[in-house]
Amino acid sequence: MTGDRIIATESKKFKNFTDWFDELLLNSRIADSRYPVKGFIVYLENGKYVMDRVSRKLEEKLERDGHKPMLFPLVATEENFGKEAEHIKGFRQEVFTITRGGEEGYQLILRPTSETIMYPMFSIWIKSYADLPLKVHQSCEIYRYETKATRPLLRVREIPWNEAHTVHESSEDAERQFRAAINIYREVLEELGIAFLLLKRPDFDKFAGAEYSVAFDAWNPDGKVNQVATVHNLGTNFSRVFDITFERRDGGKEYGWQLCYGMGFSRVLAAIIAQHGDDVGPCFPPEVAPTQIAIIPIPFKGREEDVIKYSREIFEIVREKYRAVLDDRKDVTPGEKFYHWERMGVPIRLEIGPREAESRTITLMRRDLRERTIVSIGDLLETLKKIVEEMPKIFLERSRQALQSMIVDCYTLSEAAEAIENRKIVRACWCGSIECAEIIKERVGGEIRGHRYDIQEEPFSGCISCGKKSSYVIYIARAY
Amino acid sequence: MTGDRIIATESKKFKNFTDWFDELLLNSRIADSRYPVKGFIVYLENGKYVMDRVSRKLEEKLERDGHKPMLFPLVATEENFGKEAEHIKGFRQEVFTITRGGEEGYQLILRPTSETIMYPMFSIWIKSYADLPLKVHQSCEIYRYETKATRPLLRVREIPWNEAHTVHESSEDAERQFRAAINIYREVLEELGIAFLLLKRPDFDKFAGAEYSVAFDAWNPDGKVNQVATVHNLGTNFSRVFDITFERRDGGKEYGWQLCYGMGFSRVLAAIIAQHGDDVGPCFPPEVAPTQIAIIPIPFKGREEDVIKYSREIFEIVREKYRAVLDDRKDVTPGEKFYHWERMGVPIRLEIGPREAESRTITLMRRDLRERTIVSIGDLLETLKKIVEEMPKIFLERSRQALQSMIVDCYTLSEAAEAIENRKIVRACWCGSIECAEIIKERVGGEIRGHRYDIQEEPFSGCISCGKKSSYVIYIARAY
Repeated sequence: MTGDRIIATESKKFKNFTDWFDELLLNSRIADSRYPVKGFIVYLENGKYVMDRVSRKLEEKLERDGHKPMLFPLVATEENFGKEAEHIKGFRQEVFTITRGGEEGYQLILRPTSETIMYPMFSIWIKSYADLPLKVHQSCEIYRYETKATRPLLRVREIPWNEAHTVHESSEDAERQFRAAINIYREVLEELGIAFLLLKRPDFDKFAGAEYSVAFDAWNPDGKVNQVATVHNLGTNFSRVFDITFERRDGGKEYGWQLCYGMGFSRVLAAIIAQHGDDVGPCFPPEVAPTQIAIIPIPFKGREEDVIKYSREIFEIVREKYRAVLDDRKDVTPGEKFYHWERMGVPIRLEIGPREAESRTITLMRRDLRERTIVSIGDLLETLKKIVEEMPKIFLERSRQALQSMIVDCYTLSEAAEAIENRKIVRACWCGSIECAEIIKERVGGEIRGHRYDIQEEPFSGCISCGKKSSYVIYIARAY
Repeated sequence: MTGDRIIATESKKFKNFTDWFDELLLNSRIADSRYPVKGFIVYLENGKYVMDRVSRKLEEKLERDGHKPMLFPLVATEENFGKEAEHIKGFRQEVFTITRGGEEGYQLILRPTSETIMYPMFSIWIKSYADLPLKVHQSCEIYRYETKATRPLLRVREIPWNEAHTVHESSEDAERQFRAAINIYREVLEELGIAFLLLKRPDFDKFAGAEYSVAFDAWNPDGKVNQVATVHNLGTNFSRVFDITFERRDGGKEYGWQLCYGMGFSRVLAAIIAQHGDDVGPCFPPEVAPTQIAIIPIPFKGREEDVIKYSREIFEIVREKYRAVLDDRKDVTPGEKFYHWERMGVPIRLEIGPREAESRTITLMRRDLRERTIVSIGDLLETLKKIVEEMPKIFLERSRQALQSMIVDCYTLSEAAEAIENRKIVRACWCGSIECAEIIKERVGGEIRGHRYDIQEEPFSGCISCGKKSSYVIYIARAY
């Protein structure tokens, strides 16, 4: 494939990601971060549209896998929020609380995630093995008081996401669903061309209340990783405190085995922008692009009418199947229109001048390869279909190459520190001790994100910190 | 049309709406009201699904009319919330406030509606007439501390809705958009078969901060009305306090003319259930039904295989175009399956026994008319298409008849009080004075909901309270 043609590390986003990203958010109608409450942003039409499409895509896959769509309240009671000891330790510092106009005694917790809201209901609903597995999902916003510096899309206090929660009659069935969840998220991300590391988090970094956690860390041009989704095995930790029990097939009583998993839509949006964007702006995969095709007439003097007429004909052909615009503004040059629609993230452009009108062809520009080709009107729909199918694959291949080129094997702490400094992701070996993890964090300037969940990697050296026998090949990176 | 065949006022929902509705919510997987915080409910899979479909339907129409999808924060600052004097008077008593873990000085308002959240941004965005009209919409939940008794779907403290907000360069353009908004809502409701009164609210009941308000009041079997949507003309009341100004075409500066309008999804869901439901459960219009078609095999001894095989063949034919289930459970009788899927709101049932398998026909039951017809396999898709198109029209016609039969013209306060007592909606004449409005409310036991916006009705008597010359033909009803 041709994916390797353009990994333009000299491009703006690699040179100065923050400036490139911040400028793009407003110019490309993604988000406006001037809202007067810190950590809360306004999603503009393009950002909202892409998030909605990602959301629908995920929801369809979840529902095909038997998850039921539901909507639980925004608020938890203090009592339920406080039930699971580890969970509350992890979230207590991050929650917003609600009062009723300052009323005493009316105190509720804004969901930072919905375990403590859903599970009291699961306890009512589940009576017997016949009620299992229970699989529900909801798309909503969650609220976390981030104490780190906030960043639009990447670290905000109001987080649009989807969360799924399941209950099973055995740990084996829970494990099976765990793998199913991983596959659903993998499909969503890969179909959007997003490359990621699938990592089992170290114990000290697992979800508060979980047995273990696996995460999807997408790469970012500045070398940081962007956690777009996580899958957690909760064992029976929550079912014990929320009393989620069921009658077994053999008549005994047992606690349900639980999973929860979530995907953050503003972070997936950020990954799409960061991984596929170019110097002009984001380039959205056709499936989720607000506008998929921009048709730009290029009228020459005396030929205006032909060109416009033929452009309209083309517009009528493509609008049936695609979200298309015909930009026939008179006071704007074709070059300005090219620029405008690229900034809006449009992946495919059709340019129509007198030559095209005469020969009944179209000059087609596909943004993934920045290639112009001439297509006859009869072949147009077929060509578009092919490009729309091909583009996410090219994005994915290119993105994987970019991720690969970012990973550096390191054998010493100073090598690792230098790699992090140079905006790389470090691959190293670790003995597994918490002491070494702390030394690594301090000396390297990045966090241990975990070891690969999808493949088994054999240690290639002693522990990068203590030199003793390694248990894991780990990835170290700074993170959003 | 055949809509008048079944207005079964002897049905359960007319006899005891509250019991019928409350029982149905859980049995038909609409909502669970056992959540431990008053006024907050859990939307179950059928309820959530229908609300999502209604939401998408509305969003598509709004976007076709040029509204851009956005998502604004949940929270307003105290300062912005307090800016418009009338608005805050209307909402101050109803808001929830947020603190950060009880932190002093961090106080935010949970949106009861989003004027005070959106308009500070509009003020930044709008500079010139070229930025107008600005039309945005968002689907989200709003939070209002209802002091009246809460009722699932109908009166809750967490309200799923869509709100649209527009800014215009002239009051004429705002008026034009006002009518466009009315038409969009009318289309959504009518396409769902919902009958309503379109009423201009009396001045004392308009939206806090508006010049005037028009509302869609859907009928309910208990005679109360269910306000499913409202459209408000805000004039320049908000643009003056939020400083939303633009440079006019002639160079001068002017305040923008604003509208806002909203549709409540849980209330539309309630209207669908209440207006179309029967003794078994809700009957969802096919467009929004979670399951559109239930296929029930009716195997006779010795013919099981034929019947199941033919049922599968039918399932394969219909699943391409419709959300269909084939209920081939072995331990459940066909009768129980009929009942189960009717409770789930399924509008069309296909019954398949040995006779059908032999003659390659299907017995089709359409729930709107409770009519069984025999269809040949070759005609099935065409017949389904016709029924799916026809059903909302039949719902609408029947619903309008039900509404008509609920309205009683009254000439005296005691007549009106008796009509309200008998679960009717009163049509009467009113002089327009606030004094008479108060007398009416007190003596009749219903509120003045307003006069018709869509048609001009000529007073047919003196004021029902004071007997003097009437200005309006008003509708009086109890309301959710």
